[in-house]
Amino acid sequence: MSPQESQQTGFAVDAQLLAEIARDEKIDGNLLRQRVAEGTVVAMGGKGVRPLGIGLGLRTKVNANIGTSPNYPELQGELDKLNAAVASGADAVMDLSTGGDIDRVRREIRAECPVALGTVPIYQAFGEAEEQYGDMMGMTADDLLGVIARHAADNIDFATLHCGVTRDTVAALKTQQRIGGIVSRGGSLLAAWMRVNKAENPLYERYDDVLAILREFNVAISLGDGLRPGALADATDAAQVSETRVLGELVLRAREAGVQAFVEGPGHVPLDQIAANVVLQKRLCHGAPFYVLGPLVTDVAPGYDHITGAIGGAICAAAGADFLCYVTPAEHLGLPSPNDVIDGVMASRIAAHAADIVKGVPGAREWDDRMSRARKELDWATMERIAMDPGRVRLTRGDRPDGDDAACSMCGKFCSIRAGRRLEEDAPE
Amino acid sequence: MSPQESQQTGFAVDAQLLAEIARDEKIDGNLLRQRVAEGTVVAMGGKGVRPLGIGLGLRTKVNANIGTSPNYPELQGELDKLNAAVASGADAVMDLSTGGDIDRVRREIRAECPVALGTVPIYQAFGEAEEQYGDMMGMTADDLLGVIARHAADNIDFATLHCGVTRDTVAALKTQQRIGGIVSRGGSLLAAWMRVNKAENPLYERYDDVLAILREFNVAISLGDGLRPGALADATDAAQVSETRVLGELVLRAREAGVQAFVEGPGHVPLDQIAANVVLQKRLCHGAPFYVLGPLVTDVAPGYDHITGAIGGAICAAAGADFLCYVTPAEHLGLPSPNDVIDGVMASRIAAHAADIVKGVPGAREWDDRMSRARKELDWATMERIAMDPGRVRLTRGDRPDGDDAACSMCGKFCSIRAGRRLEEDAPE
Repeated sequence: MSPQESQQTGFAVDAQLLAEIARDEKIDGNLLRQRVAEGTVVAMGGKGVRPLGIGLGLRTKVNANIGTSPNYPELQGELDKLNAAVASGADAVMDLSTGGDIDRVRREIRAECPVALGTVPIYQAFGEAEEQYGDMMGMTADDLLGVIARHAADNIDFATLHCGVTRDTVAALKTQQRIGGIVSRGGSLLAAWMRVNKAENPLYERYDDVLAILREFNVAISLGDGLRPGALADATDAAQVSETRVLGELVLRAREAGVQAFVEGPGHVPLDQIAANVVLQKRLCHGAPFYVLGPLVTDVAPGYDHITGAIGGAICAAAGADFLCYVTPAEHLGLPSPNDVIDGVMASRIAAHAADIVKGVPGAREWDDRMSRARKELDWATMERIAMDPGRVRLTRGDRPDGDDAACSMCGKFCSIRAGRRLEEDAPE
Repeated sequence: MSPQESQQTGFAVDAQLLAEIARDEKIDGNLLRQRVAEGTVVAMGGKGVRPLGIGLGLRTKVNANIGTSPNYPELQGELDKLNAAVASGADAVMDLSTGGDIDRVRREIRAECPVALGTVPIYQAFGEAEEQYGDMMGMTADDLLGVIARHAADNIDFATLHCGVTRDTVAALKTQQRIGGIVSRGGSLLAAWMRVNKAENPLYERYDDVLAILREFNVAISLGDGLRPGALADATDAAQVSETRVLGELVLRAREAGVQAFVEGPGHVPLDQIAANVVLQKRLCHGAPFYVLGPLVTDVAPGYDHITGAIGGAICAAAGADFLCYVTPAEHLGLPSPNDVIDGVMASRIAAHAADIVKGVPGAREWDDRMSRARKELDWATMERIAMDPGRVRLTRGDRPDGDDAACSMCGKFCSIRAGRRLEEDAPE
């Protein structure tokens, strides 16, 4: 980073990256630079990785989580999911690996991943502690910082760190009578570690050291919501809000240290609480971009949580959330397959785009209008070409040979568009 | 109907049907009777058909459209879809057949259909006109009323009739510069008929005769929205609103004539216009139940319109819509398959339930809380049993043999719930 670049935003974001994002997003370059400088936009990627802007006024982005698990430690499956996610249009990918040779998996994914890549170092730190000490709870603060540095040095773009799971915020849980308790893996393991070790969260206590590592390797921080609700009953409770308040302070400290920051959010939230969650996060976290998991608007539809998440994601993004973490149909049931990854990315992209239309994101509504004009013209080639998933259109149409090229197998001669033409042509007044 | 029953509500709704609906919905029987009497709830079914209440304070219901098309006239395929829809939990089914022996298809569907059945007589009326006169536009008003009577006599529960496509409302289209024009099949054919024949819509002009038929056979009227928007660009325009205003008058005339009425709505609507559409319909249509198709919140995702419709449907139902017509993944592409029917019903049920949680429908949130408790207990048997689609849960879990019964293949030893137990058990303070 040159001194000039630093002066521009206070972060290690070079002018070329800003220019590329401004062009992609069709927004003014000076406005974008100002928003990066104030922290309402986070700019990542560049230098071989697709430029990615997240935040105020930009297109709502979609992240796909992949990664091995102890039961499924193989690299190849995750590379297949990576490619499925990118081909489906994911704007970013997170490697959440917890099984196999995690360093190797991360490096191979990074080598193949053309988009921004995030990780969650805490999983590996706990896994290595179990190997080294025979108990995850034996992990030391230095162990954890060492794993963070290892991830950061591997050219990742952002890291999720659950810095807001503190003694205070965990204490707030006690009076909440949650049904789901803590459902974040990182959050629950950290809370257990704090209790077993009678110590504060090292990510909080040594936050300055964490920021120094991230600053050195130019990694953005995704402030994880370890206390997010995992049940509708637990949404927007004192524990969640306490953590958000802490994360807001940590956003300011990250900006001060020259580390770009965004904030993670729920989770499981009833439909009528979603907009309030956005207001709260944006206010308490000083306009930092909001990265949400779902939110899922019901707990009762396992097998369809890409849909429960798309409903919540659309409402949340329309209210101002900037970055949607996908949820796949396998959520709550098992590790996703490549097909689940595709379904998850597409559902989140639909949610993001539905929101972008009402956010007034440049070019968003124009896409819909082009599709509507193609429909009116019965122009099937254009409909397929500009569809969010042309392959799915081809597949669905291909299953249904039509007697008549101009209409489709649903209506045939009862086609409303053909009747509309007759309306316009047959009896001019 | 006995005089006593008539006094109760003004409609041919017997006391037993009311009692069954009140019990199913867990609401007070007197309140339900009052709402049926005032027209804010429509009660259908009974006498061998599953009781169905639609409207204020009741669970949001889901309808599945099936029916032959000219290219796919076979009965068996539609019976397969009927069974798929009912097995997936559809509360009502509409037979929209336009191909093959339509009378036979309808009667066979009725014979097999355990839930409320609706039809759209206009399609058959136009189809028969084409056969009889060589041109759909040759249809007479008497032909149309004859087909309505034939449907009504076949023990259907409700009929969609596009009575609000009038000279006035169609004229309102002219200044709107719509992209999509008229996308309702019934609406577009009627508008073309009106223009070719230089005549008013017979469903409007002879509305009293229509009501007399429906009253005789105890069929509810679903006032079709022939001018609904078929593109985001066309939503909430003067043509749509003009038609809604007319439908509001027709609601009052239906109630006066002893015919239960509900009103259909869009369609394609940007996310931020959905709640306003509900306010408008409820106000202009005097609290009549609102039956919406979607609404779809983007035009660009053919192949995934069950998801675009679930997003809109959830928001719309949360704002007060009472009855969701499903949209399948095949929408805009072709006639749905039985699997598309299942995906469509499930997506709409998710939307309906997400809304019922925030509508405060009795028992809705309790279902989610039961699921959340089962998750907390890692009680997989209960999770599967009470899931909205137990078969899907079984299938998804079955694909992923878990090393550890207690956790799942996603997290394994990193399971947040297991860590939570350690948090509670390991180091009591």
